Amino acid sequence: MTLTTAPTPITDVLKFALAARAEQVEAMLDALMPPTSGMEKRLIDAMRYASLGGGKRLRGFLVIEVAQLFGVAPTCAARVAASVEMLHAYSLIHDDLPAMDDDPLRRGQPSTHIAFDEATAILAGDALQARAFEILAESDTHSDSEARCELVQALGLASGARGMAGGQMIDIEAEGKALDLVQVGRLQALKTGRLIQYSAEAGAILGRANTHQRQQIAAYGRDIGAAFQIADDILDATGTAEDIGKTTGKDHAAGKATLVSLLGIERATQQAQMLSQQAIDHLESFDEGAARLRDLAAFVVARRS
Amino acid sequence: MTLTTAPTPITDVLKFALAARAEQVEAMLDALMPPTSGMEKRLIDAMRYASLGGGKRLRGFLVIEVAQLFGVAPTCAARVAASVEMLHAYSLIHDDLPAMDDDPLRRGQPSTHIAFDEATAILAGDALQARAFEILAESDTHSDSEARCELVQALGLASGARGMAGGQMIDIEAEGKALDLVQVGRLQALKTGRLIQYSAEAGAILGRANTHQRQQIAAYGRDIGAAFQIADDILDATGTAEDIGKTTGKDHAAGKATLVSLLGIERATQQAQMLSQQAIDHLESFDEGAARLRDLAAFVVARRS
Repeated sequence: MTLTTAPTPITDVLKFALAARAEQVEAMLDALMPPTSGMEKRLIDAMRYASLGGGKRLRGFLVIEVAQLFGVAPTCAARVAASVEMLHAYSLIHDDLPAMDDDPLRRGQPSTHIAFDEATAILAGDALQARAFEILAESDTHSDSEARCELVQALGLASGARGMAGGQMIDIEAEGKALDLVQVGRLQALKTGRLIQYSAEAGAILGRANTHQRQQIAAYGRDIGAAFQIADDILDATGTAEDIGKTTGKDHAAGKATLVSLLGIERATQQAQMLSQQAIDHLESFDEGAARLRDLAAFVVARRS
Repeated sequence: MTLTTAPTPITDVLKFALAARAEQVEAMLDALMPPTSGMEKRLIDAMRYASLGGGKRLRGFLVIEVAQLFGVAPTCAARVAASVEMLHAYSLIHDDLPAMDDDPLRRGQPSTHIAFDEATAILAGDALQARAFEILAESDTHSDSEARCELVQALGLASGARGMAGGQMIDIEAEGKALDLVQVGRLQALKTGRLIQYSAEAGAILGRANTHQRQQIAAYGRDIGAAFQIADDILDATGTAEDIGKTTGKDHAAGKATLVSLLGIERATQQAQMLSQQAIDHLESFDEGAARLRDLAAFVVARRS
């Protein structure tokens, strides 16, 4: 399912940039993992299995591209990108557990609890979360400790009870219940939106952006997060596991309401496109340095996987 | 099982102090929990269930007492104490899960996954971890953002793959294996020792202690952490669930080696007492302000629960 009819040259440029950033994030993730030695080797193997070698690195891309707008040193941005991707990887490990979404497949590979075991998967998620926060506080991440504290605080907010974990709770509780549009919107804003928004904001925090700039970047992040989620629901409803590398039709099978089930494919597609345009509009005060962020807003609703 | 024959007056004074500190920590935990509203209410209820209303608050006590040595404002110390107790509570929730130690009882009450369900318990642990880090980074915790970053970084190290989570991994892998004294020592240093040591160190970080003082406090924390764990193993081997409010005989039933199974009760007791004395010795450069910390070192090996 695509929302545009054919790939545009812009998309090709973006795809190249995404691949290049993903490589940077991957290298930094590798460098920031605890050394694989000692009796706890199995845990670190699981952390690496869940974090390395896959994914679009959308969150990492956002950190790095926004940071670049403000002239942040590439290494600092890559460290924060790796931190966000570790946080994201932990959430995927825990979401896939039998007690949660019970999903044996992730990025076309066995989920961490299948490749290892449940106990190891729970602990690997826990340890990835701890490492994500630790990295942000390390002096190599930013010369200004105020900025580092802001990064930690905002990540806690985005990923905790009033953010990602809260969204996952609502999602689990929603099974078999008839959520309305407002409720589904809140669920998705918390479950996936907050961390995507944080990724963009983190770039602005690193860049010591002024309040107005930070608000614009946050609004951009919020809108592409929402657009991304709708596109994900459309893929879940229409794609195949082979196409997108994870189990599809899950939401329908679980009786979960999504914007697609509430609005239908066509109106959900329109909604995603509207959010994508709105995201682009938030960037109007930025020059051509924000071109790839604008392209990304178009890409998230046009992607096939 | 007690390691001294009768309660001493010192112990009574200490018990009063422990109770008073526990009350402070409890009030701060309550204040720092996310508000129980919204669709994610169930999650926050579970976080509260697992964190409030119980426990000795040994870790919180250590933060507050060490901080007091350096004249830290009580509110700042109580915030860090609450953060450490949230981190500890998350670890207990996850340790009790069916995939981990599978323990239905904690502090004499149903474990969180029994009182709620597994998915909620996993998420409550995750959200408590996030909140613990977030609190440390908030400006109310310390006026100096360098100190806040140090707190975050040290907690990440103490609780992650090379700390608490790594220790839990080793513990799970150890089932049915014959660990030797060195391996058991490392397991326990990581699983429970690091967070207890962190609690003491956090007080010194808050107090901007000099390097020597911080090393002495860290050494004190390491030794009472080790002594505490041996005392715990002795209680597990000899106490009843009614006495200590959790399932006993677990280690033996799981075929896990402890210092008690390797050394026997008598030599393990001597080892705990030696560590307790060593902890007290590390405090020699501190005046009578450290009296309760000295008493605590004696108490951890004399406790009945």
